[in-house]
Amino acid sequence: MKASIYRRQTFNAAHRLHNPAWDNEKNDRIFGLCNRPNFHGHNYVVIAKITGEIDPDTGYVMDAKIIKDIIEEEVIEPFDHHNLNLDVPEFKELNPTAENIVVIIWNKIRARLESKFDLSVTLYETENNYVEYSGQK
Amino acid sequence: MKASIYRRQTFNAAHRLHNPAWDNEKNDRIFGLCNRPNFHGHNYVVIAKITGEIDPDTGYVMDAKIIKDIIEEEVIEPFDHHNLNLDVPEFKELNPTAENIVVIIWNKIRARLESKFDLSVTLYETENNYVEYSGQK
Amino acid sequence: MKASIYRRQTFNAAHRLHNPAWDNEKNDRIFGLCNRPNFHGHNYVVIAKITGEIDPDTGYVMDAKIIKDIIEEEVIEPFDHHNLNLDVPEFKELNPTAENIVVIIWNKIRARLESKFDLSVTLYETENNYVEYSGQK
Amino acid sequence: MKASIYRRQTFNAAHRLHNPAWDNEKNDRIFGLCNRPNFHGHNYVVIAKITGEIDPDTGYVMDAKIIKDIIEEEVIEPFDHHNLNLDVPEFKELNPTAENIVVIIWNKIRARLESKFDLSVTLYETENNYVEYSGQK
Amino acid sequence: MKASIYRRQTFNAAHRLHNPAWDNEKNDRIFGLCNRPNFHGHNYVVIAKITGEIDPDTGYVMDAKIIKDIIEEEVIEPFDHHNLNLDVPEFKELNPTAENIVVIIWNKIRARLESKFDLSVTLYETENNYVEYSGQK
Amino acid sequence: MKASIYRRQTFNAAHRLHNPAWDNEKNDRIFGLCNRPNFHGHNYVVIAKITGEIDPDTGYVMDAKIIKDIIEEEVIEPFDHHNLNLDVPEFKELNPTAENIVVIIWNKIRARLESKFDLSVTLYETENNYVEYSGQK
Repeated sequence: MKASIYRRQTFNAAHRLHNPAWDNEKNDRIFGLCNRPNFHGHNYVVIAKITGEIDPDTGYVMDAKIIKDIIEEEVIEPFDHHNLNLDVPEFKELNPTAENIVVIIWNKIRARLESKFDLSVTLYETENNYVEYSGQK
Repeated sequence: MKASIYRRQTFNAAHRLHNPAWDNEKNDRIFGLCNRPNFHGHNYVVIAKITGEIDPDTGYVMDAKIIKDIIEEEVIEPFDHHNLNLDVPEFKELNPTAENIVVIIWNKIRARLESKFDLSVTLYETENNYVEYSGQK
Repeated sequence: MKASIYRRQTFNAAHRLHNPAWDNEKNDRIFGLCNRPNFHGHNYVVIAKITGEIDPDTGYVMDAKIIKDIIEEEVIEPFDHHNLNLDVPEFKELNPTAENIVVIIWNKIRARLESKFDLSVTLYETENNYVEYSGQK
Repeated sequence: MKASIYRRQTFNAAHRLHNPAWDNEKNDRIFGLCNRPNFHGHNYVVIAKITGEIDPDTGYVMDAKIIKDIIEEEVIEPFDHHNLNLDVPEFKELNPTAENIVVIIWNKIRARLESKFDLSVTLYETENNYVEYSGQK
Repeated sequence: MKASIYRRQTFNAAHRLHNPAWDNEKNDRIFGLCNRPNFHGHNYVVIAKITGEIDPDTGYVMDAKIIKDIIEEEVIEPFDHHNLNLDVPEFKELNPTAENIVVIIWNKIRARLESKFDLSVTLYETENNYVEYSGQK
Repeated sequence: MKASIYRRQTFNAAHRLHNPAWDNEKNDRIFGLCNRPNFHGHNYVVIAKITGEIDPDTGYVMDAKIIKDIIEEEVIEPFDHHNLNLDVPEFKELNPTAENIVVIIWNKIRARLESKFDLSVTLYETENNYVEYSGQK
């Protein structure tokens, strides 16, 4: 009997969208306000969805405390109250769009889960803009 | 690497549920309060989910500003602060249930997207009632 | 020991802003989209705040079921799934702006409360626009 | 033309997580605070998603009032303002984790739906922890 | 220059409304479902509002971490994942209505604040019912 | 007849808490993660509450479009997608705590309102931390 469990957490970070292969005019045209040089920021909301069998002994797919700890170690601690472009190694050369951030988060959480679980991650950048990634299909 | 992006927008409209092929008694029995002759209204919330490859140059599946503009032109401008039954041509002969509205919205946004993108649309009529349409399967 | 209790309920209604003493040009200039002739609508949220002594026998300022019943009789039943301009007597000659609606609601609930209670009413027209009325001071 | 409709409702209940086959030390280690003997509680949110053809006569997949009545009879009435462990027969021998509750709810609603409809149920235990079940696949 | 800061936290608890001076019939008539003998529960939300001068050195009325710690020590630790009636000494003889809970919380937080600060506490029992207490006036 | 109207808007900005009169050790001790040198960020929510007489001709305290324009010109345009410390003149020498930001916003909106209106501003930094300022009393 497969079910999915969701765990929601938040982090606050600065970022800037920029492609160093482009000149300023093109960066400004493509990324608009998000390209401003001194960074802006967001209250990001990350939701991990983990799908697996319900363990008959515990009644859990997975203990929510375990998912919480994984998200805190892999996402909150390295990203929260940081500048994604300057402080987070994964974005030194990768543009921190919501799409790229959610892929990085998925990879980091995926590496901590047993292969029997499926994973999907949703990332809210604002209340009106969010993204979802479920791995390569 | 395929991801999904979501864009949320709102519009405020009046509507009434009514099937002109039925007499008043049957309209009242089936549609209840929603059939009242002078209309009522809602703060509709529309969420478009677009799935596609992440462009390695931009880090975007699609620029959220493009989706925002499409939703504004196809949905907000023609529906917002309007009476769906009286003012919107698509509902002259189509009952504006949430299900029928979401199909119309999906068709209008779909016509504006390249075929490489998948589309799903969610429409909230109230905080407790909402619908979703992803095209004919 | 005085405390305040809040009760939140919702209704869905159509309305139109219009001053019959003005010509169409002025109505359009002042009320914009809200003046469109065929009505639009909202999911209104009404929150009643009642302040009074905590009854030592019940531990209640007032039983929330009593407030709920008053709001349902005075607000939800006459306003919900109705056209405020056409169906609700109070707005036959009073423009149903959020401000005027909240005053009407306050008057109707106030008339049902003992004088020992204070009343304040908040009315959400959208998630971004809301109003509050606490009686004449 | 298939669409999905969602209906959201809430209930307030007490529960405790406990496996009678384990000793206290193991129950405490696995379930932590949730194992405390005198129960705690939640405002549960249940969302039923029903997928089916849009009826061309009504414009409905299913009348939301029908789903509301099913949820009230199968979920709200038997679970709301109750102790899940002590008052609800399904949990006399089944640990009321969110996963087990959502499976029970799915089974109860599924039994009330025609086979032409698909069903998925989401259950929020808190704003940060929720689960989803769509039947055995 | 006086400003107010708000801090929001949550706890999950079981409770039952009951007045031991009344017989069962009167308890049932006054408290209804809330009087059921085996308890039910809620996700309570507590919001502390503290008003005081903005410190020119820090730019804070009070460090939000200090308020957070006070709420955790005074409210979350003793109330969360507990049965208010059975486990919390303050409610051994005091009916745990939302009004009585918010007064107890106010007293506990007030005792931890310097007298130069004003305090108001809001407590949500559900998304539709909440209370507020600001001390005796 | 006095009522209050509220208008909610959002902006996304980077900031860092720092007092240049203190050494690094003290800045770190007082401001913790918020002092990190490369900035972090938030989705700020600003709510302006304006209290005044209801104009009998319009039924408005003030047209919500006028408030919206004032907030956009005074707050959103200069703050949104900016670094508060580096880009916004008011914070060149003023620590951008939520308290200091809300005072600056209040001053800027206040200067645009006729004296017959009262103003209070609420600023959310996160869903759990927010502040309010109503001018010097």
